Formats: sequence, structure tokens, C-alpha cells
Amino acid sequence: MAKQIAAASRTTPAAAPAPAPAPAAAPAAPAAAVNEVTQKMEGVVLGEDGKPLSEKQLKKLKKEQEKAARKAEVAARLAAEKAAREAADVDYSTDRYGKLPVNMSQQRTNEKREAIADITAARAGETIKLRARVQTCRLQGNKLCFFQLRQRFDTIQAVLTATKDTVSKHMIKFAGSITTESLVIIEATIAKAPEPVRSCTVQDAELQVHRVYVESAASDRLPFLLEDAVRPEADFDLNPAFSRVALDTRLNNRVIDLRTITNQAVFRIQSGICQLFREFLYARGFTEIHTPKMIGAASEGGANVFEVTYFKTKAYLAQSPQFYKQMMIGADFERVFEIGPVFRAENSLTHRHMTEFTGLDLEMSINEHYSEVLDLFDELFVHMFSGIESRFAKELDIINRQYPFEPFQYLKKSLRLTYPEAVALMRGAGHEMADDEDLSTEKERILGKLVKDKYKTDFYMLEKFPLCVRPFYTMPDPHDKMYSNSYDFFMRGEEILSGAQRVHDAAMLEERAREHGVDPATIQPYIDAFKYGVAPHGGGGIGLERVVMLYLNLFNIRRTSLFPRDPKRLEP
Amino acid sequence: MAKQIAAASRTTPAAAPAPAPAPAAAPAAPAAAVNEVTQKMEGVVLGEDGKPLSEKQLKKLKKEQEKAARKAEVAARLAAEKAAREAADVDYSTDRYGKLPVNMSQQRTNEKREAIADITAARAGETIKLRARVQTCRLQGNKLCFFQLRQRFDTIQAVLTATKDTVSKHMIKFAGSITTESLVIIEATIAKAPEPVRSCTVQDAELQVHRVYVESAASDRLPFLLEDAVRPEADFDLNPAFSRVALDTRLNNRVIDLRTITNQAVFRIQSGICQLFREFLYARGFTEIHTPKMIGAASEGGANVFEVTYFKTKAYLAQSPQFYKQMMIGADFERVFEIGPVFRAENSLTHRHMTEFTGLDLEMSINEHYSEVLDLFDELFVHMFSGIESRFAKELDIINRQYPFEPFQYLKKSLRLTYPEAVALMRGAGHEMADDEDLSTEKERILGKLVKDKYKTDFYMLEKFPLCVRPFYTMPDPHDKMYSNSYDFFMRGEEILSGAQRVHDAAMLEERAREHGVDPATIQPYIDAFKYGVAPHGGGGIGLERVVMLYLNLFNIRRTSLFPRDPKRLEP
Repeated sequence: MAKQIAAASRTTPAAAPAPAPAPAAAPAAPAAAVNEVTQKMEGVVLGEDGKPLSEKQLKKLKKEQEKAARKAEVAARLAAEKAAREAADVDYSTDRYGKLPVNMSQQRTNEKREAIADITAARAGETIKLRARVQTCRLQGNKLCFFQLRQRFDTIQAVLTATKDTVSKHMIKFAGSITTESLVIIEATIAKAPEPVRSCTVQDAELQVHRVYVESAASDRLPFLLEDAVRPEADFDLNPAFSRVALDTRLNNRVIDLRTITNQAVFRIQSGICQLFREFLYARGFTEIHTPKMIGAASEGGANVFEVTYFKTKAYLAQSPQFYKQMMIGADFERVFEIGPVFRAENSLTHRHMTEFTGLDLEMSINEHYSEVLDLFDELFVHMFSGIESRFAKELDIINRQYPFEPFQYLKKSLRLTYPEAVALMRGAGHEMADDEDLSTEKERILGKLVKDKYKTDFYMLEKFPLCVRPFYTMPDPHDKMYSNSYDFFMRGEEILSGAQRVHDAAMLEERAREHGVDPATIQPYIDAFKYGVAPHGGGGIGLERVVMLYLNLFNIRRTSLFPRDPKRLEP
Repeated sequence: MAKQIAAASRTTPAAAPAPAPAPAAAPAAPAAAVNEVTQKMEGVVLGEDGKPLSEKQLKKLKKEQEKAARKAEVAARLAAEKAAREAADVDYSTDRYGKLPVNMSQQRTNEKREAIADITAARAGETIKLRARVQTCRLQGNKLCFFQLRQRFDTIQAVLTATKDTVSKHMIKFAGSITTESLVIIEATIAKAPEPVRSCTVQDAELQVHRVYVESAASDRLPFLLEDAVRPEADFDLNPAFSRVALDTRLNNRVIDLRTITNQAVFRIQSGICQLFREFLYARGFTEIHTPKMIGAASEGGANVFEVTYFKTKAYLAQSPQFYKQMMIGADFERVFEIGPVFRAENSLTHRHMTEFTGLDLEMSINEHYSEVLDLFDELFVHMFSGIESRFAKELDIINRQYPFEPFQYLKKSLRLTYPEAVALMRGAGHEMADDEDLSTEKERILGKLVKDKYKTDFYMLEKFPLCVRPFYTMPDPHDKMYSNSYDFFMRGEEILSGAQRVHDAAMLEERAREHGVDPATIQPYIDAFKYGVAPHGGGGIGLERVVMLYLNLFNIRRTSLFPRDPKRLEP
């Protein structure tokens, strides 16, 4: 068998399964020993003590000799039978399994590779070829091997059955030795499943395997099993023997963890949100921009900014593209957006902060009123929420299996509350709040709950924050100087966007900086940028990972970042 | 007039033009002096010496008195006339011009604002309102003021004409005083242009202005004039008096520079390329990913990597998302792409290098052969090139005015050359080259020229680079170990993409690292990532700014980056 596998695996014989032990030699030794004794009997037969044997002794010896001869006969017959059996048991499946050589683009045949998602019982009888992960592999006796095969977020059952002329027991044995998480190339016939396969996403069909080749073998020391990594929390309560995979273990072995059908679905939705965001904005005349992430001066005084060694000087990582977005308004781009990394050197470990995250930022000039920005955001979020529902129903279903969550509720026309209205709502429910007090994380949650109860929505916009709790470049309310033309948006009671109309007049900006205790001299380039005529404008920044986390109610932002970064994690 | 403007400009009276000087007092003094002398003559008329005057003297005095009286009469008449004139010259346009208060979202009327691009002679007679930049402003006498108005990459001529009852000379004077690059709100009637306005993008129509308000005034000290910044190079040869705007001056004042119609068009195309790239990949099942830019270990040995102070430790800025893209293949995402910043700490100032640029990266698993990746790239680039042509014809036209360039030539099925074919082409043209020599920048250019002459294309793919000039993780050619399954793509003779099939087998990767003089222990996490089964895969990274530069033949990559970064530039 070793030779057969080596034939299929020209370049990596070392990785082939260990050859089976050679058949044991036939047990002929006892017969030979008897012969030797018999030869010595041709003269006088002596006993072990050197004396000639008595009649009785001779009789006994003969009996023993006859017994040994019979034994030898039986052994010889058995050996002959075994040899004959083995001669008949040639491996007739050698070209149907094995380990493939490393793919170095040796050839291209353009043969079709099937997607598991496209397999249904209606196609029973078709023979197909596919690449898949071996999610589980289980031998049953020496004639059956069951697989669960996986591609992204689709799984299907596959069966390899020993047959007289195509699938040998050698092949069954090989199949049973494939390590889970190995990539295999399978040739199989689609069959209707005898009963629904509840454990797979394809439930009405299964695969009857004809050929199985290992394309890339997984080590047999996986950091955790994928079936554990994908188990819903409820299962652990039912069966305490199940092994829970800790978040840190997942993140340390993120490549394996990302293979769960749940994570495939989560990051498919993350990608979809970016697509929904962009397609909406492109259709409304926005221009995509790429602004520098290495900047010459620390923005907003340098707190929470990462420092970079830039040749012989220092640079800083951008905390937000806001200043650049504003410059693009000054440069007449009118409507711009950017999706890119944002860096925050905040040394705090919470469920919703990372040191690097993906910002979905936009900025637009306004004709008359910042509510034009809110109108656009309103339509944008409704477009995103409804797009997730309609385009990613399957993904939502898969995520729900592991992390059941209440469907995200939103209104076709988003709720807009003013800050005084929110304060009144809080007070009405017995939560004391000053008029100009900022919302703590805790109060955000309470308010979210009150809003959900009253307005039946998990998404709302809160506008007119007190001026004193917003940055100096925020446009004051023209009718009441205590408030500002600013807004935060919330999903399930947590902030996912912050934005405002910005001050676009240099003189007013200087004045506002001073009132905020910021010396205008320290931000002169920023102020100067408004001296050549800038249209009134507003915008905001959305945290992508937060939107995904809150829409899916995943509780920890690290679950919605491919490779999260926090003060204690820079790897992988 | 000062009062009138102040009425329109409640919050910023200081910025209003200085009030006109008060009318001079009527010259009544000479008449009064004569009266005094006359009164003294009622008794005896005495001369200056105290003696009574002679007849002759009296006669002379009378004559003088009569002369003075006539003079006084004339002066009084003139004064009366002037007063009457001024009384008639009330400013009847006060509500038609002025400086607007800072827009703080005082109100919202939802009035329509027109786009210059939508204005044509066919709409003559319509009254519209729009916001625009004053690109030029020229008084002609005191009854006419000509403007060139601009929105993004559209310009139109506008005329303000004094009339008896609507447009006063005060208004003309105000209009003439508007600084260029100020933002104005204009109300006007569309009129057919008497003759084509060659200097504007709207040539068949002009605007007859009724109202003009300054919304955001530009300083009268612009770093350069936009008409200079947008002049084609040929103009400078024709007229040496024209002032050329140096690239550094442009970049130092990038917000102003980006306002030129040329730059508006350039960055509209840059945005369009990202859109074309993504829509093509989304349609082919790719998932967009966001990989970390701060990484724990310096990739590829730490050369050319920016170091970041990360709390109490160090991080590094990612030079490429390649390792993460590969991990995503290992995590079964199958096809991924990312558009994001890429950081290179190369201390060299060239026309085509920046320390931060935008990478369009993709990675995909392959079924059989890396040519599947080339097939996809081929279709992708043809989609991008044809999309630029069809969607951005107007932008291309605008850029051509300032930077005339030969249209970009490409084939519907892209040319693929192997490295040996390229070497043969070079040798055939008398350029010596070793078989395993890498292409220098100079040789890239020569080869590009040879390819263009022979195959009539500005875009081609060069595959099968010598293994020794590629990174250790490049898959060797299975048929000839001197070469590799790698490729570079070129536009107008310059490299814009580098990629390859990667080694996806841990054992082979270790071996390749060793042969490359890389100690596998130093890249153990990278090698370990391939121990859990990884599909064969390939990909590549495109430099966005290079594609824009070379498509448009703009010669310097800084022209195609909004805020370029090089070893000497971190601002703005």
C-alpha cells in the first residue's frame, strides 16, 4: 500500500500514511522442530537423559509426532488459505485515493468543481467533483466511512462504502485516517438522503463517494475542534462534558476559528455592510477618498494618539479622517466617504473598544440645514438594515444557530429624538439627569431600552447634544446656545455613530476654540484651512465592527473584527 | 450701504466692505464772505486802509461782488443738482446682494439648488438658484460685472448688468469686490450665450444674475490663482509671463490645488477605479476584508518598516496585507480583497514611490493552476479600463485639456508574456540581459516600448519570473526550477502589480525559506499557519495611485494622491 500511495504522491511520500505491517510469516516453525527430532530417531532413539527410550516412551513420542504432524498440516492449510485470501485481496482502488502532490500548477484541465451550496436531492444521480474540508470523519466497521464535508458555511454528509470492485478496504482504511480539517478532493454521486441530515446545512441530499484525495493535510493536533467552536451556548448547559472554546483561544488561533460556519457568515455580513454603504453613497454622487493615516501633527492635542518613528522625525496615526474629510469639502468635492482604519491609543479593555477599527466616514456639504445630513443617514441606515435582511438571510440563520438573537427592529423612517426629549424620557422613567449632562454608557443603555419600549426600534438618532459636551468644532445651535447641531446614533442602546455640522467659518472656529480652552495658535493650520471659502457641511463616522456586533447582538467587538487589536493583543 | 449690508449680515458686520465716504459738504463758504463785505457797505464804504473808497474802487468792488454772487449761484446750483442726483441714487438693490450670515442651520426651505452641469441653452429663460465658486470676477465700467462660476469640474459664465430698478451700481460695485474663490449663492436666468464661451465647460449658455450673496468669503491672499494652476504646459511656452505653479506649492496648498477642474476629474477617476475593482470582485464571490495595519512583528525581517510605540511595547505598520490575505485563504474565505493603506519606510524620493499608498489587494484559492488568477486579473483590468473610458469620458476630456496624453491602449484579451519571451524580445532589440536577471526600472521602460510597438498595448502581464528574484514564499515552476509561478503587470512600461502563486505547504515553505537564506525559526508563526490545511492560492497587490498616474500619464505619483507622503512630506 505504501508503494501505491507513493505513486499518487510523487513529491511528498513522507507525509503518506505509514504503510500497513507486512503480513506475518506462516507459522511453519513447529513442523521443522519435529522433523529434526525424527531424523535423530533413525539409529537408536535416546531420551533427554541420553538413555534409550522404553516402548512406552516410544509410543508416547510417536503420538506426539503424529499430533505435531496434524498440527503442521492444519497450519500449512491455514497459511495456504490465508495466502490465497491475500492474493485475492489486491487493492483494486489504488487510483481512487491517496495524498496528492503539492499543487504547483502542474496542469489545468478546467474540470468543474462543485459548490456544496448547489447540491440538492433534485440532482440525485449526478456525479460531481469538489474540494472540501473534512469537518468530521468516522469509520464504521471496516466497510463504511462517514464524512461531514464543509465549504465556507455549507456542510453536507458524505459516505464511502466498500464495494467488490471499486472501493477496497484499503481505501476505507485510508479515508478513516484523514485528519479533520484536511482539505480533500472528492468525486461522488449525489443521492437523496434517506432521512433529513439535521447536522448539515444540506439536509435532503448526501454524497456517495467514489474517490477521495487529500490535497492539504491538517496536523492532527488542532487547537480545538470546530464542532466545539460552533456549538450554541445552550448545548453547554445541556451537556457539561462539552468543551467550551474561550474567546482568547479562538483569537490566538484565529485562522481555525474563522472557519466556523458562524464566522464565515459574520464576516460575509461585515463585507456586505461595506458594500451596502458604498453603493448607496455612489448612487448619491459621493466620491470615495483615501486620506493619509500617518499625519505630521497629533490631532486634538495628542492624547490617545499612536506615535510613529518617521525617518528622523515623528508622525502620528490618524484618530479619524475628519480633518481631511473637511479639507475635501473645502476642496469642493461636496460629498465624500472613506472606509479605512482608525487608530485609538486608549489603554482600556472593554467589550466595545479596540485600538484599531474600521471607520465608515462620510462628509457632505449642506445647502441649508444639517438635517439634510440626517435625512441621508436615515436612508443610508435603512438601506443597510434592509439589505442585510434581504441579502443575508442565510447568513443570519446560520449565526442564529450559535448565537440566537432577537431580530433587529428598525423603522422605515428612523426615529429622531432631541436631547431635551431624551432627558425628559429618562426623567419620566425616574432616571435623574442634568440638562447638559453627557450620556454615560450606562445611561445610553437605559435610554435605548426606554426608546425600544416606547417606539419599537433598536435604531434611533439623538440630535442637539449640549454644546459643552461636544468638540469645539461643533456648530452651535443658532436658536439656543446651550445646544449644538450634533448627533449620535444608537443600535440596541449603544453608540455606533457620532457626527455634527462643523464650524466652517475661520473666525467662528477661533472663537469656539477659545471658549473651549483651546489656544487657536496650537491649531492654526486647521483654522487657516477655512480661510479660502468653505461650504457649510456635516458628517459622521460609523464604527463598522460595532454595527456588526450590535446588529447580531454578539456582545464583544472582538467577535466582529478579523484580527482584533487591543492594548493586550497585537497578534496574530 | 454699510447699513444695508449689515442688515443682510447680522453676525459678521466686520467682514462687510468699508462704507462709502459721506458726500462732501456743499461749497457755500465764498457766498457767505461776500455777504459780510456787503453789510459793511450800508454806511460809508471803507477800504482796507480805513479810508472811504473812490468811485473807481467802488465800481471794482461791485464787479467783484457780482462775480462772487454769480460764483455762489453756480455753486449752489451744482450743490442742489448733486443733492438731487444723490437723492435719486438710492440703492434699490439692497435685498439682492450682500454677505450672508454664517450658516448655522437657521432654517430649511428646501429650495432647489442647480448644478452647473445641468445648464444648457435649451433651458434659456428659466430662473435658477445655485451655489458656486467665483473663479474669476471682472468689473467692466460701473454697469457690468462678469463672473466665471465653478462647481467641481463645471464652469459657466455669469453676467451682472446694472438696470434702472433692480441692479444698482452699488450692487455692481459689491459684486466687483468679491474675492476669487469665494463661495456665492446666485439667483439668475439662463440665457443662450451670444457666442460659444470657449473658456468654460458650459459653452452654449450663460447666466444673467439677479441676486448675488457671498456665503463664505475667500481671503484675498490666495497662494496661487486657479487659472494658473489649471493652465496646460503649452500655454507657458506661448506666454512666458504666465506664472507656473510648482508641484510643491500645489501640495503645500493642496486644498486650493484640488479645486482645479483637472484635479476634480483625476480624483473622480481614482474613486471610480476603486468602484470598478470592487463591483467586479463582488460579482465573482469575493469577500471584502479589513486586516490590521498595526502588527506585532516586522514582516520580512524588518527592513523598510515603520515602528509604532504601542503602549509599553512596539508595533509595526503593515507593508502589505499579504500574510493576512493568505490567512484568510487558510480560513476558507476562498476569495478576498482589501482596499487599504500600505506603508513603506523607503527613504527614496522618486516619481513613483510614496511612504503611504493605497493598495488594491486580492487573494484567491485556485482549483488547479495559477493561470486562473491571471484570467481573473485579465478580466478585471479590462473591466477597469473600459469602465474608465465609458463612465468618465468627461473627466478624461477635462484632464486632457491640462495634461494632454495618448489614449491608453489595451487589448480585449490581455497580452501575457513569459519571462524568457521578454528576454528574447530585449535581446532581439539589442539589449543584453541574463536569463535570471531582474528587470531594472530602465529595462521595464524599454520592454514596455518594445511591447507597445509589437503588440499595440500599454498593458501586459509578464509571468514566470526567475525564482531567484522573487520572495521565498513564491511557488516554483513545477517544470523548470529556474522559474516561478509569479507575475508583474505593467502600464506604459511601469510596474503596477506584483503577485504570484504562493507556497501553501508548510514543509515546502520551510525548505524554500532555507534556500533563500531565511532561517525558518524567524518566521515560525507564518510557517505554522500552513499546518492546518490550506488550499493552493495566488493573488497580487495593485498600487492605486500608480494605476491612475499611468493611465493618465501624469508622470508623478504625487499628482494622484490627495495628500501624498514621502520621506520629506508629512503635511498637510
